[in-house]
Amino acid sequence: MNQATERAYIQPGDIVLLISPDRREFLVRMVPGRELHTHRGILRHDDIIGARWGATIPSHLGHGYLALTPSLEKQIRSVKRRTQIIYPKEIGYLLLKLNICPGARVIEAGTGSGGLTLALAQMVRPDGHVYTYEIRNQMRDQAEANLERVGLSEYVTFKVRDIAEGFDERDADALFLDVREPQDYLAQAHAALKGGGFFGALVPTTNQVVDLLYAFKQHPFGFIEVEELLLRQYKPVPGRLRPADTMVGHTGYLVFARALLAPQDS
Amino acid sequence: MNQATERAYIQPGDIVLLISPDRREFLVRMVPGRELHTHRGILRHDDIIGARWGATIPSHLGHGYLALTPSLEKQIRSVKRRTQIIYPKEIGYLLLKLNICPGARVIEAGTGSGGLTLALAQMVRPDGHVYTYEIRNQMRDQAEANLERVGLSEYVTFKVRDIAEGFDERDADALFLDVREPQDYLAQAHAALKGGGFFGALVPTTNQVVDLLYAFKQHPFGFIEVEELLLRQYKPVPGRLRPADTMVGHTGYLVFARALLAPQDS
Amino acid sequence: MNQATERAYIQPGDIVLLISPDRREFLVRMVPGRELHTHRGILRHDDIIGARWGATIPSHLGHGYLALTPSLEKQIRSVKRRTQIIYPKEIGYLLLKLNICPGARVIEAGTGSGGLTLALAQMVRPDGHVYTYEIRNQMRDQAEANLERVGLSEYVTFKVRDIAEGFDERDADALFLDVREPQDYLAQAHAALKGGGFFGALVPTTNQVVDLLYAFKQHPFGFIEVEELLLRQYKPVPGRLRPADTMVGHTGYLVFARALLAPQDS
Amino acid sequence: MNQATERAYIQPGDIVLLISPDRREFLVRMVPGRELHTHRGILRHDDIIGARWGATIPSHLGHGYLALTPSLEKQIRSVKRRTQIIYPKEIGYLLLKLNICPGARVIEAGTGSGGLTLALAQMVRPDGHVYTYEIRNQMRDQAEANLERVGLSEYVTFKVRDIAEGFDERDADALFLDVREPQDYLAQAHAALKGGGFFGALVPTTNQVVDLLYAFKQHPFGFIEVEELLLRQYKPVPGRLRPADTMVGHTGYLVFARALLAPQDS
Repeated sequence: MNQATERAYIQPGDIVLLISPDRREFLVRMVPGRELHTHRGILRHDDIIGARWGATIPSHLGHGYLALTPSLEKQIRSVKRRTQIIYPKEIGYLLLKLNICPGARVIEAGTGSGGLTLALAQMVRPDGHVYTYEIRNQMRDQAEANLERVGLSEYVTFKVRDIAEGFDERDADALFLDVREPQDYLAQAHAALKGGGFFGALVPTTNQVVDLLYAFKQHPFGFIEVEELLLRQYKPVPGRLRPADTMVGHTGYLVFARALLAPQDS
Repeated sequence: MNQATERAYIQPGDIVLLISPDRREFLVRMVPGRELHTHRGILRHDDIIGARWGATIPSHLGHGYLALTPSLEKQIRSVKRRTQIIYPKEIGYLLLKLNICPGARVIEAGTGSGGLTLALAQMVRPDGHVYTYEIRNQMRDQAEANLERVGLSEYVTFKVRDIAEGFDERDADALFLDVREPQDYLAQAHAALKGGGFFGALVPTTNQVVDLLYAFKQHPFGFIEVEELLLRQYKPVPGRLRPADTMVGHTGYLVFARALLAPQDS
Repeated sequence: MNQATERAYIQPGDIVLLISPDRREFLVRMVPGRELHTHRGILRHDDIIGARWGATIPSHLGHGYLALTPSLEKQIRSVKRRTQIIYPKEIGYLLLKLNICPGARVIEAGTGSGGLTLALAQMVRPDGHVYTYEIRNQMRDQAEANLERVGLSEYVTFKVRDIAEGFDERDADALFLDVREPQDYLAQAHAALKGGGFFGALVPTTNQVVDLLYAFKQHPFGFIEVEELLLRQYKPVPGRLRPADTMVGHTGYLVFARALLAPQDS
Repeated sequence: MNQATERAYIQPGDIVLLISPDRREFLVRMVPGRELHTHRGILRHDDIIGARWGATIPSHLGHGYLALTPSLEKQIRSVKRRTQIIYPKEIGYLLLKLNICPGARVIEAGTGSGGLTLALAQMVRPDGHVYTYEIRNQMRDQAEANLERVGLSEYVTFKVRDIAEGFDERDADALFLDVREPQDYLAQAHAALKGGGFFGALVPTTNQVVDLLYAFKQHPFGFIEVEELLLRQYKPVPGRLRPADTMVGHTGYLVFARALLAPQDS
C-alpha cells in the first residue's frame, strides 16, 4: 500500500490546517521556501512538508502546531467573507439533494464569498465544473481568491453578471440560487438546466418561500420540496451528556425542484 | 458545448429513474435490448436510450413514464434492504464532516444494505476507494448487488469480517462505524486511520453515545463532537405555507473525532 | 391532616379516569346509583365511590379497572370533537403567557369543541370566568356538553355570535382567538380588553402570521411575539434512551400581544 | 359590569410592571405613600394607584412609565436568584401535566429561588397550598422574599430539610423534584403522594434521565413519560417573517409518572 503510505505525509501543494496550542487555526497551502508568521512564532513550510499528517510542528519559539487535513467544513468556514455564508449543515444536505458528484456541471448564483462554490468545486472534481455568477465585482474577486487559496479555482468559472440576463450554459445538471429574489429568475434557471435538472434555492424568510412557490406555478418545474434543517450540538461529556445551551435557531429554508421539459421540448 | 448537449440525452449504461403516471418509481440501468415490465405495460430500453432526460416515454400500453436522473438521495433510498438505512439528512452532513471527496480512501463498517456505501462510492470517484466491512455474508451480498445495480461496485471492496480482528488498511482518510458497539473498535479504527484521519459513528441511543465518549478517553482521538440533525418538511402550498403535521423525531446521534498520532508515532 | 385524608378517597361528583386492563380509558363523573358499561363488564359507581384514588376496581366480570384523577391534559384530550383541538403543549404555554390564573376574566373565540375552554375554566376557578364565542350552534352545544361532563360549565358563558359584531365584555384580562382570520377582529378584541390586557392567537400557517402582524400595525397593540413549541417524546427505556421515531412536526404558531391604551383612552 | 370596570384601574396591593421609555422593567407592589426611585426619576405609588391599567405614568423628571399587569412569565423571570430557574416553556407544560389547578396540594423540592414555587402558588389559589423543601437556608429565605414581593407567600409553606428524611405531607395531589439526584428520593415521594398522584422531575442530562428510569423499577410508579420542549421564537416582522437566529438549545428533560398504590395499600 505505497500510495497509502505516501498519503500519510504532507506534500508540497497540500492545504494544511495548523492549530496553535491556544487553538487558533491557520489554513495554509504548502509552498517550499515559504514561512507562516503567527502570534506564537514562525513556521517554515519546509519543516511541515514531509512531516506526517497529524504531527506537531514546532514554531521557532518552540510552540507546537498540530498539522491536520482541513475538513471541507473547515475550508468553507475559513473563506474570507463580507456576506453570510451557507452553513455546513445545509451544504451537506443540498449537495445530496442536488446530486452534486464527481463529473457534474453545476451553476450557482450569487457567488457571494464562495463558501458554497468551494464545496461544489471540491465535489465535482476532477471532470465536472462549477459556473458561478455574481453581480458585484468585489465579491467575485474575493471568492476567486478564496478558491485559489485552497487550490480549487481551476474547477470554477467566475462570471460577473445580472442573472436577469440569463446564464450562458445549457443542459446543466444542477443550479442553485442564493439570491434575494429567486422567484424572478426561474425562466433563466429553467433555460440553463437539462431535462430533469436539479434546482435548489436557500431563502431566509417565509415570505420568500411563498413568493418562490407562487412563481413555480408559471414555469415547468415539478417535485417541489421545502425543508429546513436544525442542527443540535451536544456537550461531549460522558458523565453529563446534554445538548448545548444555545443553538442556531434559523439559517434558511431550502427549496428544491426538478426542471421538467416544457411541452414544446419533449 | 457539445459535451453538454450529449449529456442532455440518455446513454447506454445510465441509471434512469422512471416515474409512472401514478407515481411509482423504477430505478433501471439502460442496457440495449432489455425491457422493463411494469404494472402499466412494458418499456423497451431502446426506446429510452437516446431520449432527452426529462422526456416522457410511453409504455406499450400507452402510459407515459417520466425519465429522470435519480438523485443520490433516491439511489440511497432505493437500495434493497433488510436493515435500517442511514437517512439522507445524516448522510449529506457526514460526507461533509468526514471530508469525503473525490480521491478519498474511506473505511466503513458495517456495510448493512449498502446505502451509505453507495453515497461514499459516488463521492470518492474516480480515484478514491471505499473499503467496507460486514460480519454477515448475506448482507455483504445484498449490498454488493445494490452497488452493482447503480454501477458503483468498482469503487468498493467488500469484506466479510468481525472488525474486532482489525482492518487491513492503513493511513485511511476517513472511517465510519455504523455498528452497535462502536466503543469496542476504537483501537482498530485508530490503527487504520492516517494521522488526523476523520472518524465518525452513528448510534441511536444516548447510552451508546455515553459509552463511546468514555472509550475515547482510552485512545488518541481529539476534536470530539456529538450532534443530531432534525429535518423539517413543509407543505409546498404558497397560500398556506406550514410544516408537515408529522416529522421524523429521531434517527441517531452523530459522533465525530479526529485520530491523533499516538506519542510513539509522532 | 383530615382534609388530606378525605382527599385520598373518591367522592360523589368527582371525575374519575378508569383504565381497563387493556388500557382503554373512560372518563366518568361519579353519581351514586349509576353504572358504567364497558367491553370488560359493568362497574357500579357505588363501588368506586369511597375507594382510594389509585385503587383497582373490579368489573362484574372480574376485570380490574385502575381509578385515577384525570390530568387536565387527559380531560382536554377527552372532549368529544369535530374540530382539531389545541395540543396540551400549546395550552400549558399559552395559559402562562396570557396570565390565566384563578380569578381571571377571559374571552375566547371560537369555542370549537371546548378543549381550550375546559383548560381556561379549570384555571380561572373559583372566582374568574370564561366567555366563549362560537358561530356554529352545533359546536357550541357540543362544547357545553363537554364542559358539563367535567363539571366546569358554571365557570363558562357560551355565546353563539359572529365576532365581527364585537364582544359583549369590557376590561377583560385576556382574550384568545382560535379563528381562521384573527387579523379581522383586532378592533373588537381591543375593545374588549382592559389596558395592557393579554391577547393571544393560534394559527397554522405562516401566511396567517404575516396577515396578523400586518394588522397589528393598524391597532394599538404592543409587545408582539411569535413563537412555536416543539415537543419531543423519549422512549422511557433506561438501557436504550432515545427520542421516539416520529413526532408531531407542527400544530401552529402562537402569537401574543398586549393591548395598549388608545391615545384617547390614556 | 362594575366589577370589570373596577378591575380596569390599579388598586393598592396590586403588583404592577412599570416599563421605562428605554424598556427597563420594574415589578412593584403598590403601597400608598411609597416611592419608586429609578434611573429616570421618581414615581409616587399614589400617582399610579387609581390610574388605568395600561396608562403611562410620568416620573418627576417627566419620563413616561407604562403600567402593566405583569404576566406570570414576567413574575417568574423577575425572581431574584442565585440558581438557574425553570423556563416558562417548561413551567406551562408541567402545570398541565401535573394537574396543578385551583385547590391542589402540591409538594416541591428544591425550592431554589422560588420561580416554580411562584407559579405553583399562583395556580393553586385560593384553596390549595404549596409545600416547598430546600436544603440551603439562604435559598429558602430568598425564595420566601420573592414570594412575599408578589403577594403569594400565604399559599406556601417553606421548609428547610434534606428530603432524604422524607416529606411531612401525605396524600398530596402532585410532587415535583428539581434536585440533582431525583432517583434517590422516589420512596419519599411515593409516601407523600396520594394514590395516582402526579410525579414530575426536571433534569439537565441524559445520564440523570437514565438513572431515574432505572430507579422507577424499584418503586410503584407507572405511566412514565420523558419529554423535552423546544421553543422557537420568530422575528415579528410581517414582510420578513423568520425564526430568530439563535434559540435556547436545551434546558432539561421532563420526566412524569403517576404514583401507583403499593400492593399492601390497595
